[in-house]
Amino acid sequence: MTEITEKYRYMKIFKKNEICLPNSWIVVRLDGKQFSRFTDIHGFEKPNDVRALQLMNKAAACVMEEFKDICLAYGQSDEYSFIFTKNTKIFDRCRDTISTIVNSLFTSSYVYYWNDYFAYTKLLYPPSFDSRVIIYPSDINLRDYLSWRQADVHINNLYNTVFWALVKKGKHDRQKAQEILRGSVSSTKNEILFKNYGINYNNEPVMYRKGTTLIKKLISCAEDKKKHQIYILQLNCDIINDSFWKENFEILGLQSLQLFQKPSGMPGYKVQSINLLEKIHSIK
Amino acid sequence: MTEITEKYRYMKIFKKNEICLPNSWIVVRLDGKQFSRFTDIHGFEKPNDVRALQLMNKAAACVMEEFKDICLAYGQSDEYSFIFTKNTKIFDRCRDTISTIVNSLFTSSYVYYWNDYFAYTKLLYPPSFDSRVIIYPSDINLRDYLSWRQADVHINNLYNTVFWALVKKGKHDRQKAQEILRGSVSSTKNEILFKNYGINYNNEPVMYRKGTTLIKKLISCAEDKKKHQIYILQLNCDIINDSFWKENFEILGLQSLQLFQKPSGMPGYKVQSINLLEKIHSIK
Amino acid sequence: MTEITEKYRYMKIFKKNEICLPNSWIVVRLDGKQFSRFTDIHGFEKPNDVRALQLMNKAAACVMEEFKDICLAYGQSDEYSFIFTKNTKIFDRCRDTISTIVNSLFTSSYVYYWNDYFAYTKLLYPPSFDSRVIIYPSDINLRDYLSWRQADVHINNLYNTVFWALVKKGKHDRQKAQEILRGSVSSTKNEILFKNYGINYNNEPVMYRKGTTLIKKLISCAEDKKKHQIYILQLNCDIINDSFWKENFEILGLQSLQLFQKPSGMPGYKVQSINLLEKIHSIK
Amino acid sequence: MTEITEKYRYMKIFKKNEICLPNSWIVVRLDGKQFSRFTDIHGFEKPNDVRALQLMNKAAACVMEEFKDICLAYGQSDEYSFIFTKNTKIFDRCRDTISTIVNSLFTSSYVYYWNDYFAYTKLLYPPSFDSRVIIYPSDINLRDYLSWRQADVHINNLYNTVFWALVKKGKHDRQKAQEILRGSVSSTKNEILFKNYGINYNNEPVMYRKGTTLIKKLISCAEDKKKHQIYILQLNCDIINDSFWKENFEILGLQSLQLFQKPSGMPGYKVQSINLLEKIHSIK
Repeated sequence: MTEITEKYRYMKIFKKNEICLPNSWIVVRLDGKQFSRFTDIHGFEKPNDVRALQLMNKAAACVMEEFKDICLAYGQSDEYSFIFTKNTKIFDRCRDTISTIVNSLFTSSYVYYWNDYFAYTKLLYPPSFDSRVIIYPSDINLRDYLSWRQADVHINNLYNTVFWALVKKGKHDRQKAQEILRGSVSSTKNEILFKNYGINYNNEPVMYRKGTTLIKKLISCAEDKKKHQIYILQLNCDIINDSFWKENFEILGLQSLQLFQKPSGMPGYKVQSINLLEKIHSIK
Repeated sequence: MTEITEKYRYMKIFKKNEICLPNSWIVVRLDGKQFSRFTDIHGFEKPNDVRALQLMNKAAACVMEEFKDICLAYGQSDEYSFIFTKNTKIFDRCRDTISTIVNSLFTSSYVYYWNDYFAYTKLLYPPSFDSRVIIYPSDINLRDYLSWRQADVHINNLYNTVFWALVKKGKHDRQKAQEILRGSVSSTKNEILFKNYGINYNNEPVMYRKGTTLIKKLISCAEDKKKHQIYILQLNCDIINDSFWKENFEILGLQSLQLFQKPSGMPGYKVQSINLLEKIHSIK
Repeated sequence: MTEITEKYRYMKIFKKNEICLPNSWIVVRLDGKQFSRFTDIHGFEKPNDVRALQLMNKAAACVMEEFKDICLAYGQSDEYSFIFTKNTKIFDRCRDTISTIVNSLFTSSYVYYWNDYFAYTKLLYPPSFDSRVIIYPSDINLRDYLSWRQADVHINNLYNTVFWALVKKGKHDRQKAQEILRGSVSSTKNEILFKNYGINYNNEPVMYRKGTTLIKKLISCAEDKKKHQIYILQLNCDIINDSFWKENFEILGLQSLQLFQKPSGMPGYKVQSINLLEKIHSIK
Repeated sequence: MTEITEKYRYMKIFKKNEICLPNSWIVVRLDGKQFSRFTDIHGFEKPNDVRALQLMNKAAACVMEEFKDICLAYGQSDEYSFIFTKNTKIFDRCRDTISTIVNSLFTSSYVYYWNDYFAYTKLLYPPSFDSRVIIYPSDINLRDYLSWRQADVHINNLYNTVFWALVKKGKHDRQKAQEILRGSVSSTKNEILFKNYGINYNNEPVMYRKGTTLIKKLISCAEDKKKHQIYILQLNCDIINDSFWKENFEILGLQSLQLFQKPSGMPGYKVQSINLLEKIHSIK
């Protein structure tokens, strides 16, 4: 049998191993596969289903817990982007491994925690996500990427908010609603919302308008203030302007996690056991 | 806002789009991430847990149902390989998309169907898999790849069977068992099994010794013999020798699915609705 | 200084090393850079300059001498394609090295031998070529590639022959000649040539109509018939049909060079010293 | 024939087009192929042949003239590195095209100008170079790359200087000289040079010790001081320390060429006609 194995040893040379360019930001972006069908079948509320968004956030937090070098994650609708620090050595920066494991763990967590967020809706079939790796060489490129995704939320969510107002409150059919919106600018959309349906877009929930940003901080343990634990903050703030990046300078500065005074009630996720995590990483 | 979006349009040029070489077999291989820990925590039977293997097969069948261009899948332990026909145009042969979606759907199905196979064992945390794409230009290369994987099953399973016999029946500790086996050839292992524990390795369940091969056939519908439906056969046969490839000539011959007289009780999976599937594919 | 070198050792991890897929044909195709300008400045005869084509052939033969794994080269106009056998291990199949060295040696030879072919025309500035590597997994793909290039010669040369007849003999200006030819089919072009200018296209020199194919053979040494030497045949035959591939079965069959009875006067290049060459290769 | 061409249209899908990561420095490094043999056969002076180095510089200047986006070139021995500005759009940043054309033009110029530098030595066969592209995301990475190459010159040249002193002046054979030098540190090498042969290494020609750096400046035309022309400066200075980068801030600053008061006698190359060059580029 050893000889047989020898015979097949050459199979390994067909394997391709692409390394992400060193000293560059690694972004992994996931997108739901055929999610318009998935959301219809599972009766997601339109234009936004808070349960679905929270499940996305939970799955993203699971990924962020697992990989200490993910410094930020940003999600909206059925997509999520994970940012690995530019100096990460995770999986020797092997492109395929990073992309597929992040995607697999996210998908796995999405199914695993479904019942926690959809108490009354059975998951009818296993959903899936695709993912890709994108490399950004500079901090400005990275910020532009995240700004692009947040600008995208605004455009899509404003559109969807008016569209569903026209359908649900205006009793237009979907085709008619599309026609009304075709080519309309932002101000027109805001006007339709306000004049016809009394909706002030700026009062819509901030999670819908800004997407969700997850970042890591150190917080004092409740039991022993001198001990710290890692905490994943769930924010819905503007990440286009400078203030976010100044307040959280450790991200672009590649510095260690900063101590943070978490106001009670601020949403987020406690990282269970960073020691365990690190041990796992070192095993690989 | 449109202008803002314009400003970020350049982000797209950072995206890399690798196309799988045309006219070549595309293999996607998945591997469980840290599965030795996962199997310990979930109390998998050693050396083989039939529930776990059947769950792997079920998840693989879900992937095979979804993609009509997967002509064969082969699995063992915590790994599975999916073979796309060399002329497939799935996702325009985009490497990342193929790899990540296959992996995501497999993972998703693994979690989704867990309870069907582990009735009394709770899934304690979301498992994950990595995946890679490997390109093989010739039929011989493809067959060598699959032979390599099946030879690997034999080597691993024989080792594990003796190892766990030494531990469970021989009451050796794990380290002692390893020492006994170090450098031993196949015949020695067979002898230990037979002389000390009365086990004839060739009588071990064929799924453990040969791994599982999934292929697609057409079978007559029970209700109307003139109608056909797609069926995924679950086989545990030798795929190294020529006979398998002659009997199932449509695989390397890139021909349409062949009609098959399924003996009753033969394991496999009925493909629910191929029309639906094809429609979904055409939408993409 | 050693410490300084240590500091910069990390530069190497930025290097990318792409390997050509094993068991696949490697094609390197070169194209002249801005050669319409180059041919104008150096007064090349139009539509074909036999000196220029012979210089291309000479440069290609130099490349073929250097690399024993190039089994065939095909050239036309200012382009040349080199075929490495599918099992070559040259430079560990490193894509960049193969492409750049073949291109560099071709360019170098083109300048080096210029005076041998252009006795009365001074080379006014250093010309350059680009090159690319293309991988073909099957013999049919390789033959289709070469057929494509030879079909391309036919189309271009017929066009150019009529174009320059219209300009030189018909005294049309270039723009008028273009207009006459716009959208014309092959038969029309043949007719213009024959009726207006008495030219039977099929009597045009075969090198212009078929391009040049270089292949390697063994021939008996003039001094000692029992000794053989490698000879590069320069052919202008059809390589689309089967007959070429049957007569020279060793190419697709990956067999050793075949003995050939070279008719006296048949054009080609004696390989100076294959021993030297092999030694050089083994040094690498 | 059109149909035939249709049949082969699919060949194009096999072509791979890799784009250099945007917003990153593109380095093309060339190396002489089997140059130890080439220098022996052509009787190059050891350890340094000033004619050979000047020919390398001339060939590099030809490349730099051709591509306005090469902002710096650095050479030593038989290697040369060309730096394209991080925002260059040359050949749409296509990796293969950039690498092969730079290499081809360099090789071509090397052969073309041979006689200008080796008046009494015939070029016996066409030399060749390989090349590779390396991407550096940050200015620091780029500077470290160039520092690495310059540190390399120092190490190699000190070694070679002592080696050839031992051989030529000390009358040791090459093997003995190697033995003497094995494992020796810099100070020992300096001592051997000084004590045994009266050579102060720091008085060796600076081109040998520092390599050659080519950068572009604007200088006033001799005929009309108000007109400027592009000039390629040939420097042999330290490029590891900050001062070089401060004096020539336009390189990392991605700014336009700076006006420079060229001392008479300073070596370099006048760029013949930048307008012509730019026109050529726009044609492509």
